[in-house]
Amino acid sequence: MTKGEQTRGDIVRKSAPLFNRKGYEGTSLSDLMKATGLQKGGIYRHFSSKEELATEAFDYSWGKAVSGRLDGVAEVVDCVNRLQKMIDNFVELRAGLVSGGCPLMNTAIEADDGNAALRARARKALQSWTVRLSKITSEGIEKQEIDHRTDPLTLSQLIIGSLEGALLISRLQKSDEPLRAIKQHLSEYLENNVRTLPAIAGKQPTYHR
Amino acid sequence: MTKGEQTRGDIVRKSAPLFNRKGYEGTSLSDLMKATGLQKGGIYRHFSSKEELATEAFDYSWGKAVSGRLDGVAEVVDCVNRLQKMIDNFVELRAGLVSGGCPLMNTAIEADDGNAALRARARKALQSWTVRLSKITSEGIEKQEIDHRTDPLTLSQLIIGSLEGALLISRLQKSDEPLRAIKQHLSEYLENNVRTLPAIAGKQPTYHR
Repeated sequence: MTKGEQTRGDIVRKSAPLFNRKGYEGTSLSDLMKATGLQKGGIYRHFSSKEELATEAFDYSWGKAVSGRLDGVAEVVDCVNRLQKMIDNFVELRAGLVSGGCPLMNTAIEADDGNAALRARARKALQSWTVRLSKITSEGIEKQEIDHRTDPLTLSQLIIGSLEGALLISRLQKSDEPLRAIKQHLSEYLENNVRTLPAIAGKQPTYHR
Repeated sequence: MTKGEQTRGDIVRKSAPLFNRKGYEGTSLSDLMKATGLQKGGIYRHFSSKEELATEAFDYSWGKAVSGRLDGVAEVVDCVNRLQKMIDNFVELRAGLVSGGCPLMNTAIEADDGNAALRARARKALQSWTVRLSKITSEGIEKQEIDHRTDPLTLSQLIIGSLEGALLISRLQKSDEPLRAIKQHLSEYLENNVRTLPAIAGKQPTYHR
């Protein structure tokens, strides 16, 4: 890695929490100068625009989020448990993330009526997360661990939407309660409505209350 | 209403979509001047700061959202159906709102690490919505329409979080699908896990798939 590449990486890493907390519009040049310890020229020697820096900062923050959410997931054999593990990671592994909450939510909200490049990044991130969950679901259907009537895309969106919404409320209320409640809710839903019921002839499944 | 009050109201109404779409930081003085047709002095004769204008704009946008979500709700007698009606309104009545998505979500995301006055407004809005749903649930428990093991606060947060999260995804994907899916999901949840089961002695409740 050249010195220039290193400096570039440093700028991204140091500006990522700013963009994630304050948003694209809310992050000023003086914020960026303070965080990086560089002058305007020192920053913009490495980036053609604030937009370019912000999109790379998003990728950095999102990468951290993804790696936290995937922690230990691949090792889980059963597909329902694998979905559950991703949910648990989302709820439990808040440390190690770039500060300011979920980069996808933050960027999606600001960019939905605004910056096109950031919007594209957020869409791509959502897409990749959705595909990941959908693939686990499809595999589970194939392995008969997941009920064949489950729609992988719908289930993925339900999980992602519920988690993001609960995070929004948790952050606003400064309480983990809504995140814990959605974890419980999704867990019950996965066990009762998604997991293939044991096929025991003549035996009615137990009602889940 | 004096002419001054009228102008003040006009400024709030015209700037509300700007703040809701572009956020507090993203809305510039020149945006405000263009939207209101007034000069800086004409705007700030009526407001002591951009913050004061933004908080009133939030209240205006939130008021529109609340009135849409409550449309026809009071007329519904059964408490489960009343919760369902609020969910339906959230999903179906997107027209008539101030453009830019849910003011609560937009303001919460931007203000969670930022402007304290806006954050307080968003918290209050969330609080009032939560209390409203919780009261319906408590009434339902009292009338034995809702299972007595239901926690009103948890259910309220589940509904609000799921709806807001689905809206986030819908807006980013420019598709109503995630909103329709959450409506379906919550509706099944209310019927199967929240509504009091008919007490027919000796009869097992039907499993809900």
